[in-house]
Amino acid sequence: MAGSYDVIVLGAGPTGENVADRAVRGGLTAAIVESELVGGECSYWACMPSKALLRPAAAVSEANQVRGVSGARLDPAQVLARRDGFAHHWKDDSQVGWVKNAGIDLFRGPGRITGERVVKVGDTELRAGHAVVVATGSRPVVPPPLAGVNPWTSREATSAHAVPGRLAIVGGGVVGCEMAAAWQALGARVTLLARGGLLERLPAFAGGLVAKGLRDAGVDVRLGVGVTGATRDGEGGITLTLGDGTTAAADEVLAATGRAPRTEDIGLETIGIAPGSWLDVDDTMRVRNAGGWLYAAGDVNHLALLTHMGKYQGRICGDAIAARARGREPTVTDRSSVTCVPQVVFTVPEVATVGLTRRQAESAGRAVRVVDYEIGDVAGASLFADGYTGHAQMVVDEERQTIAGMTLAGPGVGEMIHAATIAVAGEVPLKRLWHAVPSYPTMSEVWLRLLETYGL
Amino acid sequence: MAGSYDVIVLGAGPTGENVADRAVRGGLTAAIVESELVGGECSYWACMPSKALLRPAAAVSEANQVRGVSGARLDPAQVLARRDGFAHHWKDDSQVGWVKNAGIDLFRGPGRITGERVVKVGDTELRAGHAVVVATGSRPVVPPPLAGVNPWTSREATSAHAVPGRLAIVGGGVVGCEMAAAWQALGARVTLLARGGLLERLPAFAGGLVAKGLRDAGVDVRLGVGVTGATRDGEGGITLTLGDGTTAAADEVLAATGRAPRTEDIGLETIGIAPGSWLDVDDTMRVRNAGGWLYAAGDVNHLALLTHMGKYQGRICGDAIAARARGREPTVTDRSSVTCVPQVVFTVPEVATVGLTRRQAESAGRAVRVVDYEIGDVAGASLFADGYTGHAQMVVDEERQTIAGMTLAGPGVGEMIHAATIAVAGEVPLKRLWHAVPSYPTMSEVWLRLLETYGL
Repeated sequence: MAGSYDVIVLGAGPTGENVADRAVRGGLTAAIVESELVGGECSYWACMPSKALLRPAAAVSEANQVRGVSGARLDPAQVLARRDGFAHHWKDDSQVGWVKNAGIDLFRGPGRITGERVVKVGDTELRAGHAVVVATGSRPVVPPPLAGVNPWTSREATSAHAVPGRLAIVGGGVVGCEMAAAWQALGARVTLLARGGLLERLPAFAGGLVAKGLRDAGVDVRLGVGVTGATRDGEGGITLTLGDGTTAAADEVLAATGRAPRTEDIGLETIGIAPGSWLDVDDTMRVRNAGGWLYAAGDVNHLALLTHMGKYQGRICGDAIAARARGREPTVTDRSSVTCVPQVVFTVPEVATVGLTRRQAESAGRAVRVVDYEIGDVAGASLFADGYTGHAQMVVDEERQTIAGMTLAGPGVGEMIHAATIAVAGEVPLKRLWHAVPSYPTMSEVWLRLLETYGL
Repeated sequence: MAGSYDVIVLGAGPTGENVADRAVRGGLTAAIVESELVGGECSYWACMPSKALLRPAAAVSEANQVRGVSGARLDPAQVLARRDGFAHHWKDDSQVGWVKNAGIDLFRGPGRITGERVVKVGDTELRAGHAVVVATGSRPVVPPPLAGVNPWTSREATSAHAVPGRLAIVGGGVVGCEMAAAWQALGARVTLLARGGLLERLPAFAGGLVAKGLRDAGVDVRLGVGVTGATRDGEGGITLTLGDGTTAAADEVLAATGRAPRTEDIGLETIGIAPGSWLDVDDTMRVRNAGGWLYAAGDVNHLALLTHMGKYQGRICGDAIAARARGREPTVTDRSSVTCVPQVVFTVPEVATVGLTRRQAESAGRAVRVVDYEIGDVAGASLFADGYTGHAQMVVDEERQTIAGMTLAGPGVGEMIHAATIAVAGEVPLKRLWHAVPSYPTMSEVWLRLLETYGL
């Protein structure tokens, strides 16, 4: 069997779907190759199920922080059932329907590049008229000390059907913090082990507030401690040996220490690229020094391992391929994957960030000034939750007089970050932001306070 | 007694406080004259107590819309006590302390202008070296048919210490809708009577969703009906006669039909201005054709009757007076009070809007295109509340290729509007907004969908 398409996309996650969709809208023919479920990690083992687990806990927490409200509680079985619904019970019929309606052909099975513009899926050989796009994403890395105890990865942590009695989580990044919040709320006794602090890529206050929030929820948060060994006894219990000589006991352990590109087994060696590499791309998602026909979008290019950034890159990539197929260079190229990446961490409290931290801005040689404000001092925050605790940090590019980045931590900040994303992406001058009046009394009034504190 | 100041401000609400504060920061001396509580309507009878009443109901509603959460309920006595706290028990000590710390002198009593740059407070004559600022705000208007039954106004509706059995509300604007939501949630049986629809200045979907939300909460919403008469019987019961010949019975009735400027009794006649007028100002808040020394900020100038806009105008006004006192023209002038006014209506669901509606934009001669999207179709919204219902409408200025306005209605949209406020105030081109990637899965992803629907 054989087939030929303008574009062949490896991976039917949100990134690959966006690439193919935009290519088809641009007048091209497109095929997607997927070896697992159409919809990808995000739909079944990441964003959707994790947020389905986390939102009920946040709603309870937010309600119970308001004087005059009482009684809000979680029903773990209902929360798990809700999660199952959001994960479409790990069936991809609706996503397959979307692919078909979008005019994209789907090939199921592992796809391998076998040469320039050629992909094999089982016995079927597909030839690409214009481009092959790698959108295979990433997979969790299990650190060596945990390899022998069959640990949970993000997949099991988002799809488990029973609440473990004791859950140890190794890793203080986003996955570790979110899953600690989720499973503790569902009734597990969670121990969170981090080699350093929590959420270390962000300003320290963010990890500090999350550590406090998790501890207040009952999580045993242990910072500055590595795992050196792990054993599982005959009854299934796990004992972790820690770098400080202590131990931690659990019924399950989640490895949440990092991710690797899913490029080991897609035939990269046939075109002179080392299997297992992250793929280095330009601002149209075209892989550098690979002949011009190979693209990589989403996690696999290592720019920003987030669903929304993968989708963004997917749109740019699909449009770029369609433009080049018409003999034109693309007019819309990636301007955000390095300097304007938003992220919301759905812990209690929430953390939301976009753009550059002070450290990142200074590394990039930009002269910045940092402005801090306690969100709880804003009227809207005190109304939102009695005793509101939260913090905002704005990083101002002093030369350009624009906002280079912002980080917020506190209840309900997740929907507040898009304002900063627009300010960063739009390079809106501070003097103009002064005229963007926050509505009173909302928490967004922190914008006024930050600008006043800056000196406007 | 006598005194002299660079600036004399009539009215110690948030607007007047901001005027005086900015003037003092600009190196001037300032006095504030206040006949009631320092802190103004907002602190005691508007924003703060109303939102203190509304937030618990919203938290309960939001929690109970999430599968897996149950049991959240309101305790009306606790909610009223919470409200009392946010209204500082109608004592202004903390605000008086703020005024003092800001270096502003406070004069208590009704202030009257008695001539150019002269204000009398009781026996004290104050002379202004540079400016007198009217920041006396507005008062509710009681429509004639309700005058005889001693109705609630916004003051009683925000400060009442007991829940009426039956509350009739006359007026379908923001006050009427918010107070219907608050008192119904607290246990009153509310009848909301509107001459037209609800929230009629906004696109029709907003009022439609609020009407549905109020009805779902048990409010008897009657649209297209005016009140022609009202009587109170010997036992305190009120009967309203309606334009359609029907009646409505209540224990209290709230007049929420509009506001008038508090300028009747401040001596405007001594300087040739009709008492009771709204005061017409330029973009520095200086009253036109009044000799150059008279300013008016906040509700009283009728530009935008909202606390945050009054504060914004207050900052501009105080800075402008300070600049002119140094012989310079102000560099920062009002650019938002007409074209970039944000507002959040804290009903269930919330409504949030900024900038121009289609109708307003077309009246201003701007060529616009309207883009609509169901917020519930965004993954973040379905995670936020099962069965999420909400709507977004974006008004695009086709010539400038910027956003002229946006209106959102749905649970939790209040903190989402500041993103649009920044886009409108910053005149961020649509093509640049495309690079402001919303974090997945938040409700802010509606931005992506709106831009895609537009054609990006």
